[in-house]
Amino acid sequence: MDKNIDTVVVSSRIRLARNFENIPFPSRMSQDQAFSIVMKNTYDSIKKMGDYKIYTMETLPSLTRQVMFEKHLISKNLIEEPSFSAVILSSDEKISVMVNEEDHLRLQCILDGFNLDEAYKKINEIDDIILKENNIAFSEELGFLTACPTNLGTGMRASVMVFLPALSMLGKIDELVDVVHKFGLTVRGATGEGSSADGFLFQISNQVSLGLSEEKIIEKVKNTVLKICEIELNARNELMLRDPDLVTDECMRSFGILSCCYKISGKEFNSLFAKLKLGVFLDILKCKDRKLLSTIEKIVQPATLLEVSGKELDSEERDVFRAEYLRKTLNGCIIL
Amino acid sequence: MDKNIDTVVVSSRIRLARNFENIPFPSRMSQDQAFSIVMKNTYDSIKKMGDYKIYTMETLPSLTRQVMFEKHLISKNLIEEPSFSAVILSSDEKISVMVNEEDHLRLQCILDGFNLDEAYKKINEIDDIILKENNIAFSEELGFLTACPTNLGTGMRASVMVFLPALSMLGKIDELVDVVHKFGLTVRGATGEGSSADGFLFQISNQVSLGLSEEKIIEKVKNTVLKICEIELNARNELMLRDPDLVTDECMRSFGILSCCYKISGKEFNSLFAKLKLGVFLDILKCKDRKLLSTIEKIVQPATLLEVSGKELDSEERDVFRAEYLRKTLNGCIIL
Repeated sequence: MDKNIDTVVVSSRIRLARNFENIPFPSRMSQDQAFSIVMKNTYDSIKKMGDYKIYTMETLPSLTRQVMFEKHLISKNLIEEPSFSAVILSSDEKISVMVNEEDHLRLQCILDGFNLDEAYKKINEIDDIILKENNIAFSEELGFLTACPTNLGTGMRASVMVFLPALSMLGKIDELVDVVHKFGLTVRGATGEGSSADGFLFQISNQVSLGLSEEKIIEKVKNTVLKICEIELNARNELMLRDPDLVTDECMRSFGILSCCYKISGKEFNSLFAKLKLGVFLDILKCKDRKLLSTIEKIVQPATLLEVSGKELDSEERDVFRAEYLRKTLNGCIIL
Repeated sequence: MDKNIDTVVVSSRIRLARNFENIPFPSRMSQDQAFSIVMKNTYDSIKKMGDYKIYTMETLPSLTRQVMFEKHLISKNLIEEPSFSAVILSSDEKISVMVNEEDHLRLQCILDGFNLDEAYKKINEIDDIILKENNIAFSEELGFLTACPTNLGTGMRASVMVFLPALSMLGKIDELVDVVHKFGLTVRGATGEGSSADGFLFQISNQVSLGLSEEKIIEKVKNTVLKICEIELNARNELMLRDPDLVTDECMRSFGILSCCYKISGKEFNSLFAKLKLGVFLDILKCKDRKLLSTIEKIVQPATLLEVSGKELDSEERDVFRAEYLRKTLNGCIIL
């Protein structure tokens, strides 16, 4: 079972929302408050915890911002309104602190696999030093105060990214949504609010952060995700029972196109790569190196790919470069 | 130029229609006339010319007949009305003589490439001995007498099979038909009258065989085919100038699917393989062995494939076996 969960759960994320006392929320703060108080004090605290760097959004090249977004290190919000904001990153990029997004601070830790407890432990260490060294807005009655009431209380969102190819292909995503809502949680596309589920990826997270302790929220998300793993794994069995030849063929053709095409868009990549991964998880395709597979998936995303190429490529050239990269890497990694 | 013509012309065929004097045409003949006169006398003459075997249609397994049809050794007609008919084959299968098809005898020679003269020479040797040893219906005024008036005169049809991917993909087949008609010739799909042009293959041949000598007919077909080669090769240049990335991508993806899929129908094979060949001819795909490529194309045709498998396969199983064969053979033959 453990091994199979790894074929459903992609990554785990804990995010905490924090605000400085007596400083207006980012939408109303002054430049001085943004830079000299919130940014400076936060970074002063965090850098004591290890190798952290701060990047003010306005000074970052647009491509670098896009790359950070693709890696889930920053939000779309932070890209779109960069004037007062910054991000603080640990050297391994597992911890990122967005400064002056919707709240003064959004601390997050993302880890591969089903790892909410560890992510919570890591982000807690950062949170502890910030709370110790700064006046963070907190009410005995409401908990941590936040710009949006849905984040009041713990200020915590626990999210798990899940890969649900079989539920998607069987048209059973409604069933998933029912389960998630029954547990009082929410489900979204891979890149956040309002995004579509490209590549059969979904984010499961808590809807409210008030009224339950951090531990209870995490437990609830974990239990829901375990339930989702169960129904996805059952759906994979169903898929293979219904028409094994069709599923096998789709997975193998996806590999064929990905490893041989001359050009491919990011959207088509996501859709074919999802079927390739399904093929690996169903033992239809032999994969010599699953880590390389997930590296490939990250590298060929639009901005990251441009950065890797080190060239200025238009959209057509990027699709050609993506295909070239896939031909070079996939053929050694997957064996029919 | 010579080398490029080989990428357009697939094969050359000369066919002669002959009938025994004072014996009714096959549609009206008796069993005795069919077997004891036409079949016996023809085989007695032909077998003097080398290693020839005769197969009566009714005693041939249905699969063997289908295989012969796929190899263009016999016509659909001969399969559908097998009771009085037979085929005489040379050991290299270059010469086939259908007995009691529409006419008593249909002598044909098929050779690879642009080789009408050689095919004519070979079939003439067979024709000569038949004419010498038998009473073949001939009128000073009309020439050889045949069941259908379109075959009167020389009784000859000279056909060339051409591969026209660029004209097809550019939607310019009308242009081809105009050229062919202007020369007084006819164009058909690969497997004869009324068949569609699967795999971008077309047959160019003379419409009538009366009023021109054999040599003149052959010259006319040769000139027309040279003209078609020219316009197809121009069309390939145009295709690559218009959108080289798209053409390159289509050819490479076709190889990807053919070499990786789990199952594939004969129809899809023909369409993808045509693009793979185009890719080889345009130097998009490197081919280590073009002969192997054309062997592969013949072997995966429905009946031939069943024969090769040595098993009883239903249609779905055959598609799986075809894909398995392609994975084994294509990956070594084509290099990206």
